[in-house]
Amino acid sequence: MTTTPDVLGPATHQHTNRAFRLRRRPNGPAAAGDLTLVTEPVTPLREGQALARTLFLSVDPASRIWMDHDRPFMPAVPIDAVMRGLGVCQIVASRRAEVAVGDFGAGFTGWQEYCVVDDTTLDAPLSVLPSPLPAPASAFVGVLGHTGISAYLGIDFLDPQPGQTVVVSAAAGAVGSVAGQLAKERGARVVGIAGSPEKCRHVVEDLGFDTCIDHRAADWQAQLDAATPEGVDVVFENVGGEIMDHILMRMNLHARVFVCGLIAHHNVGDRDTWRGLVNVDQVQIQRATMLGFIVTDHLNRWPEAINHLAERLTTGRLRHEETVLEGLDAAPAALDRVFSGAEIGKILLHIADPT
Amino acid sequence: MTTTPDVLGPATHQHTNRAFRLRRRPNGPAAAGDLTLVTEPVTPLREGQALARTLFLSVDPASRIWMDHDRPFMPAVPIDAVMRGLGVCQIVASRRAEVAVGDFGAGFTGWQEYCVVDDTTLDAPLSVLPSPLPAPASAFVGVLGHTGISAYLGIDFLDPQPGQTVVVSAAAGAVGSVAGQLAKERGARVVGIAGSPEKCRHVVEDLGFDTCIDHRAADWQAQLDAATPEGVDVVFENVGGEIMDHILMRMNLHARVFVCGLIAHHNVGDRDTWRGLVNVDQVQIQRATMLGFIVTDHLNRWPEAINHLAERLTTGRLRHEETVLEGLDAAPAALDRVFSGAEIGKILLHIADPT
Repeated sequence: MTTTPDVLGPATHQHTNRAFRLRRRPNGPAAAGDLTLVTEPVTPLREGQALARTLFLSVDPASRIWMDHDRPFMPAVPIDAVMRGLGVCQIVASRRAEVAVGDFGAGFTGWQEYCVVDDTTLDAPLSVLPSPLPAPASAFVGVLGHTGISAYLGIDFLDPQPGQTVVVSAAAGAVGSVAGQLAKERGARVVGIAGSPEKCRHVVEDLGFDTCIDHRAADWQAQLDAATPEGVDVVFENVGGEIMDHILMRMNLHARVFVCGLIAHHNVGDRDTWRGLVNVDQVQIQRATMLGFIVTDHLNRWPEAINHLAERLTTGRLRHEETVLEGLDAAPAALDRVFSGAEIGKILLHIADPT
Repeated sequence: MTTTPDVLGPATHQHTNRAFRLRRRPNGPAAAGDLTLVTEPVTPLREGQALARTLFLSVDPASRIWMDHDRPFMPAVPIDAVMRGLGVCQIVASRRAEVAVGDFGAGFTGWQEYCVVDDTTLDAPLSVLPSPLPAPASAFVGVLGHTGISAYLGIDFLDPQPGQTVVVSAAAGAVGSVAGQLAKERGARVVGIAGSPEKCRHVVEDLGFDTCIDHRAADWQAQLDAATPEGVDVVFENVGGEIMDHILMRMNLHARVFVCGLIAHHNVGDRDTWRGLVNVDQVQIQRATMLGFIVTDHLNRWPEAINHLAERLTTGRLRHEETVLEGLDAAPAALDRVFSGAEIGKILLHIADPT
């Protein structure tokens, strides 16, 4: 230990962290025992570090991907490491020039109550948010965070034209709900796919989609065909599996497919017995373009996206819903709910209030 | 009938056409009775028409697609119409300003010995070739025709860089064999996949691929993994099915997939019982781009492609193989051989010699 005066260091000793650590890689859905909740002291800050308290924590389909070692899009969470997750946080102690106590940030806080901020902060530096926050803190892991930005960048790529037919799967979800509204704004005909009559009602009545198909209905494929009489020009894909497979069969010439999420694939334990997509030949037949997308590849465009979305949010032209679960302890349950498809909008955890 | 002097018309009366007409749509592989060979008189030419004799006729995976009414990439061949096909032909009578007797052409001649050329010629106007032909006539339905041009445009899109790993499926086929050679010319590492030890030997020793995997070997997937130790950057896909599915699992970040052909899909009779592709999620995970392609969409680039290929062909830098079957009668057998994967290079029919 050094004898350097440590004016901010002592603050960290006031804090005990609670964190979910990944103990083993799930086979299929994450199960009890894959993650354990531990209570740990917060280590003293070194020069260049700050301590942040998590306010809201996002639980996402990608959370499940990060538990796997088999070709995740970021390095898998190491066994015994704190589970990766995106959060909004507030600085409670700082030995780091870029941030002061009270500042807000968003980034990879992890599934924990406190996070040490440094040049890596798990996977990427924390983004410092304006203070005071121009929107509720939760928005920065939702409509003004990775999910809303995914929707914005996807619609920007897909560039739906007036009169074209857009299909958005998981239309009541955090990404799909925003994507569909942005496509409507461009004059496209927007058809949603969601998992209950209540979600479909929300998507049409609250979000303004032209129609929405309940994929749990026995005849959902026939309903989707009827809802896309002129075929599908643009696909905002959040689901994959049999839903995507049927959408492929509706594609028009030169259709564009934005592969933003494939939640139906993430919990598959044994790929060898899982039925895949049989209509991939339509990619050739229709001379389609399919683009795989991960929002964190495009951090340089986040400010543009946030401006675009915030302007619509503050003027009431963009709706979003949140399902907020209380406390870090609820994280595994929240992940189950992400995959059960029971919720509308963004699923997140409330960990603490801002000061 | 008019009394207009018909100086070229009488020539047509010397000709009796033989043609394959599509009688019903196949379920699975085309079978006896789906096509019938008929003998028909050639009708007198009208002003603006010419009569062409087929010299070589191409039989392709796409032939099977055109027999189906379920989302082909061109309108399906109508029942009882002459089967669609690309051929090289020579004009034997002309009442058409653009062509004279003896001229060579390439285009949709159909599965027949004579074809009436007009502004439509089945699906598109005939392309008039230079006379004398700068290469053997058969090349214009092969390496200097739709298959070679597909390879050229695919490699142009994929733009493999020196040191990148390219995988080419159906590497001994008409398209793959050319695509791999063009990728090698750009300095990429080229891994072929083909269907026999003899094909693999040809692909490596004659065509210069770095290596080639026999997908009929029990451990072909492990062999492909070993042959792509740094993953796959660029995919020239001609097959689909389980071969494509495994390639998807080898993709590197930002891989590019050119979907030029999916021969494994065309003979599937019942999509509901066919196992599809389970690794489509890798398109997202690796942020891949997948592009569906049909060469006849790009007729404006055919001259550029032909120049590029002809220069390499005539200087001996581009190898190609042909499997030539004799006579129109062999067309159904040729189609079987396209799908059996028994042949090396372009499969075509010799119908007549040029004069």
